[in-house]
Amino acid sequence: MRTVTDPDVAAGYAVDSSLGAVPPASFEVVRARDRADVVEVLREAGATRRPVVPQGARTGLAGGAVATEGSLVLNVEGLDTIEELDELERIAVVGPGVVNASLKAAAAAVGLAYPPDPASSASCTIGGNVATNAGGLCCVKYGVTADYVRGLEVVLPGGAVMRTGRRTAKGVAGLDLTGLFVGSEGLLGVVTSVVVRLVPAPDPPLTALATFGTLEAAAAGVVALRAQRPGPSLIEVLDGPTIDSVQRLADYGFPAGCAGAVIVQSDRPGGTAADVQRYASVLADAGALDVAVADDPQEADALMAGRRALHAAQELKGPHFTEDVCVPIRRLADLIRAGHRLGAEHGVDVTLSGHGGDGNLHPCFFFRLDDPDSRRRAEAAFDGLLREALAMGGTITGEHGVGSLKARWLPLELGEAEMTRQRAVKAVFDPLGIMNPGKVL
Amino acid sequence: MRTVTDPDVAAGYAVDSSLGAVPPASFEVVRARDRADVVEVLREAGATRRPVVPQGARTGLAGGAVATEGSLVLNVEGLDTIEELDELERIAVVGPGVVNASLKAAAAAVGLAYPPDPASSASCTIGGNVATNAGGLCCVKYGVTADYVRGLEVVLPGGAVMRTGRRTAKGVAGLDLTGLFVGSEGLLGVVTSVVVRLVPAPDPPLTALATFGTLEAAAAGVVALRAQRPGPSLIEVLDGPTIDSVQRLADYGFPAGCAGAVIVQSDRPGGTAADVQRYASVLADAGALDVAVADDPQEADALMAGRRALHAAQELKGPHFTEDVCVPIRRLADLIRAGHRLGAEHGVDVTLSGHGGDGNLHPCFFFRLDDPDSRRRAEAAFDGLLREALAMGGTITGEHGVGSLKARWLPLELGEAEMTRQRAVKAVFDPLGIMNPGKVL
Repeated sequence: MRTVTDPDVAAGYAVDSSLGAVPPASFEVVRARDRADVVEVLREAGATRRPVVPQGARTGLAGGAVATEGSLVLNVEGLDTIEELDELERIAVVGPGVVNASLKAAAAAVGLAYPPDPASSASCTIGGNVATNAGGLCCVKYGVTADYVRGLEVVLPGGAVMRTGRRTAKGVAGLDLTGLFVGSEGLLGVVTSVVVRLVPAPDPPLTALATFGTLEAAAAGVVALRAQRPGPSLIEVLDGPTIDSVQRLADYGFPAGCAGAVIVQSDRPGGTAADVQRYASVLADAGALDVAVADDPQEADALMAGRRALHAAQELKGPHFTEDVCVPIRRLADLIRAGHRLGAEHGVDVTLSGHGGDGNLHPCFFFRLDDPDSRRRAEAAFDGLLREALAMGGTITGEHGVGSLKARWLPLELGEAEMTRQRAVKAVFDPLGIMNPGKVL
Repeated sequence: MRTVTDPDVAAGYAVDSSLGAVPPASFEVVRARDRADVVEVLREAGATRRPVVPQGARTGLAGGAVATEGSLVLNVEGLDTIEELDELERIAVVGPGVVNASLKAAAAAVGLAYPPDPASSASCTIGGNVATNAGGLCCVKYGVTADYVRGLEVVLPGGAVMRTGRRTAKGVAGLDLTGLFVGSEGLLGVVTSVVVRLVPAPDPPLTALATFGTLEAAAAGVVALRAQRPGPSLIEVLDGPTIDSVQRLADYGFPAGCAGAVIVQSDRPGGTAADVQRYASVLADAGALDVAVADDPQEADALMAGRRALHAAQELKGPHFTEDVCVPIRRLADLIRAGHRLGAEHGVDVTLSGHGGDGNLHPCFFFRLDDPDSRRRAEAAFDGLLREALAMGGTITGEHGVGSLKARWLPLELGEAEMTRQRAVKAVFDPLGIMNPGKVL
């Protein structure tokens, strides 16, 4: 087992993309090159009862891959081979270190698609996507990572290799442990190979972008779009403060002072142009101030530019906590209003945007690093919105995971009896409790 | 806890639709009316360590709902309320006793659809569909029951009520226990409420039916159909002996002596007519002797009549073991040939048909009740085909479940280490081992 010896290099593996993660005083890093390395690490960790933190590209936002004191960080980015891509069976078998965008490109090269598309698609890995059951912008039509994973190879603490699931289109032999491992955030074992389902490639999407004078109208637009048949492949929403932050980065063509925007796409084979025209009418009927419709993929891409600039705009705006709540669609306007109200109450800048068609937003609560009180107030607003989302019948995390950042709110959603049951399920696979301790449960 | 007192009535609840199931000498039956009844039964069963066999409409083919000696049969058909159907969120909340076709009808009434469609749709229940992760004819486009279950309410042995999953479009808070319970065949607890996802209603399907002179050509037709974009909503295959058995029931228009038939449908909004014409060309190019195309839903229905008559035709042909193997699509012809070869080797009549587009067939091995040797030979051919399917990278059960009938083959697929892990997961929820003992694991 060869650990990383350069402390500066090692420090880079101690944190993920969650806010404020700092390397612990003592930890080590192993960069696995193959399954045998993973087996060796987990065998030794089992023998010595040493905590293991599995990780990929460290793009996670919930602190699920952050090193803990005394832990061994097991990075599997090196297992980055697309082992198989079978056009006829429409499956791919990939290592956990394969980058999401690389799998997408490989599938596209043979007329297929791998839909899950987290915003970090260009750098995040399939192993991390499996660990968090990652979603993205496609979910309103295509669902999440779990909908595409057919089978897994997993190394368990102690070093045993387990295979779950199947390669075939269907299969119900025994309990579905594949589904249990998808979204398990490194609590149960380390995924070393993934069988994913691919789908026929869609058409290049066309886009419509509508701006609104009121939040209510924008939310009504989202609701109306969801009733459309055939339905959109993307329904994104941005509130006024989000639009302001994006426009501050550069002029993406949003009019000043608008209260919300809705972006909608169709990728339906042979139907994109008709669909986006129809969606544009729906948004106009819902009260849009203005609706722009892209006639070709280049224009469609331009209309998405503001949405894509979002992350950079938020980074520019300053340090912030990012939420990932998901609520019933009909509560979307309520959720945005609650965010604004909590921001006002706590004196915190808030932006709300995200996957409106799924009711899954990524509210950001901003603070100043040199002002501990502003951070405390941002945390209070963050806490308030999680509780509001739960009260609306929602969840504290739609797609980012619980990790370390949201672990203290999980009992609010699950209840103590359920937490106990979840810990018992973890103990089946990790009786020593060495897998990613301090995360989630 | 009020048990059924009439022994003839009770006997009807002791068996499901699996071959040769007989009531044990001693068992009791409770017909639950609501969740409180289920809680009472499971509390008492936990206190007395009495085995519980949960069941719905008893349409299962794998013996998963058959009473065992000394067991308490817990029938939940009475929990048959559609508690909620939310058009906007596109979810329904239903009791486990709701019949599959009833949920379909309720969804259709508001322009939505619940896709999973086991052949027993008119009588099977959602609880049973969840227990077996049921599929059906729709799967090539729509997937299986697991793809539609968002959350569950489950009563655990001992009487604790557990809620899993969510109502929202996305959610990753904690381990996914919903997926673990779907397909768990009554081993973990009793489902008392199900949150299902609905989808926009498709168009009424149009159909093309092609007959072939060789099996190879029919299988090539299936493979070619799978490459089509947009793809079919149904791809069924029937071998020559299946066609003969159907024609013996009545004249469904199949020519004499053809070696195989492929039935294909499209339900794509606005595209059914163009699709089936295209699929018909593909099948002609694959070497079909004859291709019939339905121009309207009535004709389309007529072309499906032979497929729908299949179960009756097989019942008429005589007692048989029904398999449910699923193999990679490219092995479809190999699987059918293996079935024929095993039939010839063991002197057993064999028909092979099913969901060709998924590689999921339901081979039938016939025998005579008055001839124990013929039964033994049918069992040997059945065993042989399960092993062939595994050797092809397939599974022993695509959608029917393991139940009691296939339990002895499950270790061949999973291996002993995996069986041990699966039993440990069961023990988390059922530490006393009272849930559906003798089934699956």
